[in-house]
Amino acid sequence: MTRITSLQVTDVRFATSLFLDGSDAMNPDPDYSAAYLVISTDAGDGLTGTGLVFTIGRGNDVQVAAIRRVAEHLLTSDVEDLLADMGATSRSLVYDSQLRWLGPEKGVMHMAIGAVINALWDLKAKRAGLPLWDLLGRMSPEELVELVDFRYFGDVLTRDEALDILRAAEPGRDERRERLLADGYPAYTTTPGWLGYDDAKLERLAKEAVADGFQQIKLKVGLDLDDDRRRLKIARDAVGPDVAIAIDANQRWEVDEAVAWVDTLAEFDLAWVEEPTNPDDLLAHAEIARAIAPIPVATGEHMANRVMAKQFLQADAVQVLQMDATRVAGVNENLAILLLAAKFGVRVCPHAGGVGLCELVQHLSMFDFVAVSGTTDGRMIEFVDHLHEHFVTPAVVTGGRYRSPLAAGSGAEMLAASVVGNTWTPE
Amino acid sequence: MTRITSLQVTDVRFATSLFLDGSDAMNPDPDYSAAYLVISTDAGDGLTGTGLVFTIGRGNDVQVAAIRRVAEHLLTSDVEDLLADMGATSRSLVYDSQLRWLGPEKGVMHMAIGAVINALWDLKAKRAGLPLWDLLGRMSPEELVELVDFRYFGDVLTRDEALDILRAAEPGRDERRERLLADGYPAYTTTPGWLGYDDAKLERLAKEAVADGFQQIKLKVGLDLDDDRRRLKIARDAVGPDVAIAIDANQRWEVDEAVAWVDTLAEFDLAWVEEPTNPDDLLAHAEIARAIAPIPVATGEHMANRVMAKQFLQADAVQVLQMDATRVAGVNENLAILLLAAKFGVRVCPHAGGVGLCELVQHLSMFDFVAVSGTTDGRMIEFVDHLHEHFVTPAVVTGGRYRSPLAAGSGAEMLAASVVGNTWTPE
Repeated sequence: MTRITSLQVTDVRFATSLFLDGSDAMNPDPDYSAAYLVISTDAGDGLTGTGLVFTIGRGNDVQVAAIRRVAEHLLTSDVEDLLADMGATSRSLVYDSQLRWLGPEKGVMHMAIGAVINALWDLKAKRAGLPLWDLLGRMSPEELVELVDFRYFGDVLTRDEALDILRAAEPGRDERRERLLADGYPAYTTTPGWLGYDDAKLERLAKEAVADGFQQIKLKVGLDLDDDRRRLKIARDAVGPDVAIAIDANQRWEVDEAVAWVDTLAEFDLAWVEEPTNPDDLLAHAEIARAIAPIPVATGEHMANRVMAKQFLQADAVQVLQMDATRVAGVNENLAILLLAAKFGVRVCPHAGGVGLCELVQHLSMFDFVAVSGTTDGRMIEFVDHLHEHFVTPAVVTGGRYRSPLAAGSGAEMLAASVVGNTWTPE
Repeated sequence: MTRITSLQVTDVRFATSLFLDGSDAMNPDPDYSAAYLVISTDAGDGLTGTGLVFTIGRGNDVQVAAIRRVAEHLLTSDVEDLLADMGATSRSLVYDSQLRWLGPEKGVMHMAIGAVINALWDLKAKRAGLPLWDLLGRMSPEELVELVDFRYFGDVLTRDEALDILRAAEPGRDERRERLLADGYPAYTTTPGWLGYDDAKLERLAKEAVADGFQQIKLKVGLDLDDDRRRLKIARDAVGPDVAIAIDANQRWEVDEAVAWVDTLAEFDLAWVEEPTNPDDLLAHAEIARAIAPIPVATGEHMANRVMAKQFLQADAVQVLQMDATRVAGVNENLAILLLAAKFGVRVCPHAGGVGLCELVQHLSMFDFVAVSGTTDGRMIEFVDHLHEHFVTPAVVTGGRYRSPLAAGSGAEMLAASVVGNTWTPE
């Protein structure tokens, strides 16, 4: 029997608000942070499982407390059992009825479950000597559906349908793996577009993005329409007509306001409109999507769980699904979301602005390409060039593409000095 | 200037799982608990503001940590300012952008905001020498709309419409206040119906409920159809044809399963079907509601916020809205929900099975009768006869009706011995 010998949960914070990195219409001064979990065992292999939740500062200590409480569930278990049946492990955490009351399946407790599940996946991938995307991409359709919680999916996606999707993607897995290893996965960059940057910085970074090979950039909008027009013109002039520009309102608008605002900005040829309004409001997103079509609506970084994802897809409220690696209950729930997206034929372009989100979510998109949707058409992963230096195997983006990680694990592991050096303790 | 001199947040737990009180199809063994906040000031009046979040055990410590973090926001403020403009105070907490990331507006952080807001309302009511329902019921329509956050309501309820609703209810306020004081507010009881009780206890408690004057009881269902049929027959025989019986599945079913299950139980004349499936799934609730009509669908105890309430109403997914005093961000957000319900003409029958929920939510229903909907038609507040003895001014239900509280405050204040005697500290 393998036991967990320690659970370390650390409150890691970076003072990003000093430079307005990450600033947008709803989040003027985020301090990018992570509640960071390290699981050690007595297996004698020296391997740890690492997971994290990305937050933007205050409250990261509450997230730490939540991860600690969830992770305690594992202390009496055999690690071999936990890793052997990750579907059962995930369900045992999600359906702890007392903890579930605090969501259910949303917010701090749900993200805590995600950190714990992801830490176990990190450990499992390290033990297998494979990067997570490749570990998942080598599992059979039958093994993969066992990871998914189909509860509340009866009206939309059954286990059999999920199996069909995964089986349809089996031919060509090897070829796609080779293509990934050779060419990587498309990326777009948000680095030029933070709302707190001045025009000169926007222009410079937009030109750099094109020079770096990105085919799409993203601008934060929604605070002032005149500013948005001016900034979009600067960006469009900087990148030229062939590079796509998406905009992101970070939940700033009412329905009518969103439609009118987008109408005024449409001349700049918008790749998508992201988070136009409250992220729970699928009916509002559906109304906005109908009104601004063919410009697609993108959302997902605050999508609380697979049941919300299901409804956004049912209601045609989202055309670009922005899966987030640490918002939901980990790899298992994101697999459910990838299957839903495949069922509805909606493209997935993950959210990755944050601490470790690029490192984590690239594995899910690459796995999706290998074994679920089988395509990168219209798909790309967000890239933001912040804070990667704190990770043991930072995401590598060159020529506008994520290079497939080769190191074993999920990518979540941080440098010891980065954890210790940025540890924050409430008063 | 009045300053806050202490913020005490206590992890209070009761071992209710020993007796299967509160047991249902999703929550087999809850330990009813409260994360309990007491705010003291240097005003010299000896008054405290108390608020709480009801939980069912594990994770109550995380809720405590969250309340502490939110309450800290108040430490630099003048209490007079906070209480004078509760709308602004509420918005300042809900829109703290760093904390908001952890929801947004859902789960542990959002409930923590509710506890803090409600504690301030408790203090404000005590200072006014009025029970909360009466304090709110004496505010003008213009004052009341200032409490409401209309953001994301643009498509459904404007400030002007809310004002119209409140002004329409102004005539007759005094008469309804007198009726409340004389007759109280209708109640129904869930006490007989917990899933862990045996048939004899169900029968005995159902008969007692009728003898006590209740016009409706509620049974937990959803684990086993044969058991449910047997238990409903026992209950129907015990209460006779004239007392209503509602059923509560506590999120147990898929859509098809809910429709088939309810079809099999419909012969027992169901007052409503509560939480048939996942509480985020408004599209599923709408489908179930269409299929089982005219039996109404009830939900709300896990409705994360006013944006979810709005959508359930827009989609005809709920016919009985079960407002909860501690699930959302306090009195202010529940006022928004009451206004939405009034706009849609949907009745509100609050959830109140838990620690302090009866004590708190009665004020909101009574205020609704006085100043919002102006009616009790089809409306009643849940009553569960557990744990009231721990409160300074316990809810009083006689003859099947809540008696209007006369003591100043919100009803949240617990006895000192109950707090100290049930304090739990994580190892």
